[in-house]
Amino acid sequence: MSGADGPAVDAARVIADLRELDRRTGGAEGARRVCWGQTWREARGFLGELLAEIGLEPERDEAGNEWAYLEGETSPALALGSHLDSVPGGGWLDGALGVMAGLGVLRAWAAAGERPPLALALVDWADEEGARFGRSLFGSSAFSGSLDPSDVLGLRDGGGISLPDALAENGIELDRVLEAGSRRESLAAYLELHIEQGPVLEAEGVATAAVSGCVGAERHRFVITGQASHAGTTPMEMRRDAGLAAADAATRIEAVAREHEGVATTGVLRLEPGVPTAVAGRAELVADLRHPDAEELAAMLGEVREIAADATDARGCRLDEELVWKIAPTAFDAALVATALEASRETTGSQRLIASGALHDAAEVARVAPAAMLFVPSIGGHSHAAAEDTSEADLTAGIEAFGLLANRVLGALAA
Amino acid sequence: MSGADGPAVDAARVIADLRELDRRTGGAEGARRVCWGQTWREARGFLGELLAEIGLEPERDEAGNEWAYLEGETSPALALGSHLDSVPGGGWLDGALGVMAGLGVLRAWAAAGERPPLALALVDWADEEGARFGRSLFGSSAFSGSLDPSDVLGLRDGGGISLPDALAENGIELDRVLEAGSRRESLAAYLELHIEQGPVLEAEGVATAAVSGCVGAERHRFVITGQASHAGTTPMEMRRDAGLAAADAATRIEAVAREHEGVATTGVLRLEPGVPTAVAGRAELVADLRHPDAEELAAMLGEVREIAADATDARGCRLDEELVWKIAPTAFDAALVATALEASRETTGSQRLIASGALHDAAEVARVAPAAMLFVPSIGGHSHAAAEDTSEADLTAGIEAFGLLANRVLGALAA
Repeated sequence: MSGADGPAVDAARVIADLRELDRRTGGAEGARRVCWGQTWREARGFLGELLAEIGLEPERDEAGNEWAYLEGETSPALALGSHLDSVPGGGWLDGALGVMAGLGVLRAWAAAGERPPLALALVDWADEEGARFGRSLFGSSAFSGSLDPSDVLGLRDGGGISLPDALAENGIELDRVLEAGSRRESLAAYLELHIEQGPVLEAEGVATAAVSGCVGAERHRFVITGQASHAGTTPMEMRRDAGLAAADAATRIEAVAREHEGVATTGVLRLEPGVPTAVAGRAELVADLRHPDAEELAAMLGEVREIAADATDARGCRLDEELVWKIAPTAFDAALVATALEASRETTGSQRLIASGALHDAAEVARVAPAAMLFVPSIGGHSHAAAEDTSEADLTAGIEAFGLLANRVLGALAA
Repeated sequence: MSGADGPAVDAARVIADLRELDRRTGGAEGARRVCWGQTWREARGFLGELLAEIGLEPERDEAGNEWAYLEGETSPALALGSHLDSVPGGGWLDGALGVMAGLGVLRAWAAAGERPPLALALVDWADEEGARFGRSLFGSSAFSGSLDPSDVLGLRDGGGISLPDALAENGIELDRVLEAGSRRESLAAYLELHIEQGPVLEAEGVATAAVSGCVGAERHRFVITGQASHAGTTPMEMRRDAGLAAADAATRIEAVAREHEGVATTGVLRLEPGVPTAVAGRAELVADLRHPDAEELAAMLGEVREIAADATDARGCRLDEELVWKIAPTAFDAALVATALEASRETTGSQRLIASGALHDAAEVARVAPAAMLFVPSIGGHSHAAAEDTSEADLTAGIEAFGLLANRVLGALAA
């Protein structure tokens, strides 16, 4: 049915494609599409089969991103996509949903035999997860130009293979990846459908939500040096317990996040020597702080640093700090977000606007072009695990809302 | 000089023996005398050379403890000793001091050409440290009868070698180790000189101290199960953070130790998955509690359990608890402790009576015979490390006080 908004996406077909992808490259132990490996290439092979059905052939850019174009009345293109790669033992929807939903939109136009007002591009970004080499958003940051190849030159996987060697196995030269940016010229806007990967939408009973942007993040490693000593013979008042300094800091960092309505996570807390019979002489605490507002995020970091210094001083320890990673908050394009909210409301009645606490390729694209996202709920908030799932009803609603969004944006860009 | 108390020990010679032992079986990286290995056997070979100089030959019991007897006017014997085995990279004095000082007492009597009023036994207990198989006080607990061979049958070292195989390499059969207990009959009392392995005596400027007993210990593993979730997408109020529950418990357990004037150590705090981007779904916290008084120790454990339950409940997590190990407080023999205090005071002016926070072979012997210990300070409280040391003056004073103690006890037992 091709209405005023253009042809409607066939959500059932998109879900069927996702299930077939999972049969081929996932299974009971979860998705196995770790980027640059054989199973990931098989996933792309399946995508190629599906594109061939509608007469399209994928092109690969210099960073390993895969593109397919459906010709429109004018160019540049509206791009739709996400990523096929997964973490090891990952979920069937993380990334794959956005790629298959984007393909669904291209398929709807192709099936309708109509040329869309703008060209439609499908993009499958390479190595969004960074699961093997620890560098997320590889392909989309090469496209946006924010990647510095010299920063990743030395990365190695758990087996000692270097990133440049893994890229070369896939026909990619690290010193040419930024050439993928040449496709920026032909990009009018970018839309991405994704699962929330958190518990909020499910808890609220909301089927779809427009995404206002991605939170900013500050990830800092605090290394606390005290004095290892014997658990039996060192009186409490003579200890310099680095582990307790870290534990004290962790519980107080939690309170900072609550005050500022952001999130703070201390998922790494390691003690040395780490045995029952010794006071910890060294502790490592990593604080991951996130907030959609840059000023609030900076305020959180300031308080966290004071807490770390105070907890460390109180136990006669020394504090060292190292920035692990940071990214500024990304606000998506206001007009596109408004259209996303409209498509969500018209499809499911949901007025929900949510800030993404996770990063997505859309945050990289937003650096160089208008971008927006739609979310569907994650059951139990689970993601990056075989248990990752979304109800059939919510998937259907999300895919339909995404199709409506894409068609509305095509119309707006053409006007 | 053989005074009213019998011949005086030659402390300089004892220290020279310790330095030679360190040259042969230690060095810059610390002591290498891990029990059941080649270097440990070399250490015993050196002890055999020293015994041969005074016409004695060591005997090995069924548990691998080595004994040498100097005949006296009567039997059973006063035993003196400690252990030659060390942790890897251990200190030059831990254990070795007590063995060489005991040998010094036998040498003094042998050199004086006098028979002591009681037989004197030197004992080098096997595997006090438990460094390779994780079971401390092996030889002395076989002697006392508290060892259950079936408890240690399945122990393996880091290379997969079983304890029974390592014992067999040393000519020891695990199912016969309790036969070492037959020597209990011929033991009148036991004395041990040891380094403090803590910072208290040095801080107080005390050269020697009598030891009242060994603290009791309760070592419990708390496993906290929450829900692993995404660091960016899980709001603070929807988290079940097992890591924060453990951190909260750790800081509150510290306060329990201070209130009860005991010690509590949370040297193991492990998070899973233990990555910066995930809320910890599981945490393991080991609490090691020690107190010289059994009732106080029980009260500490009760409070620690309440804290663990409360911290876990507060974050919607589940708590499991497992006893790792426990030992009741050991009070040394009152008359021997009084004599040890007297010998300490007469030698160095020190009136200090200290409870040992570490365990020693003397605690096992005390189950079956009168036992007591003397301590000398540890510089900086360091032990189980190459940095372990005691000043020459304190070593000399400790060895002389120990010699005086041994002779006084010989006199008292004979009377």
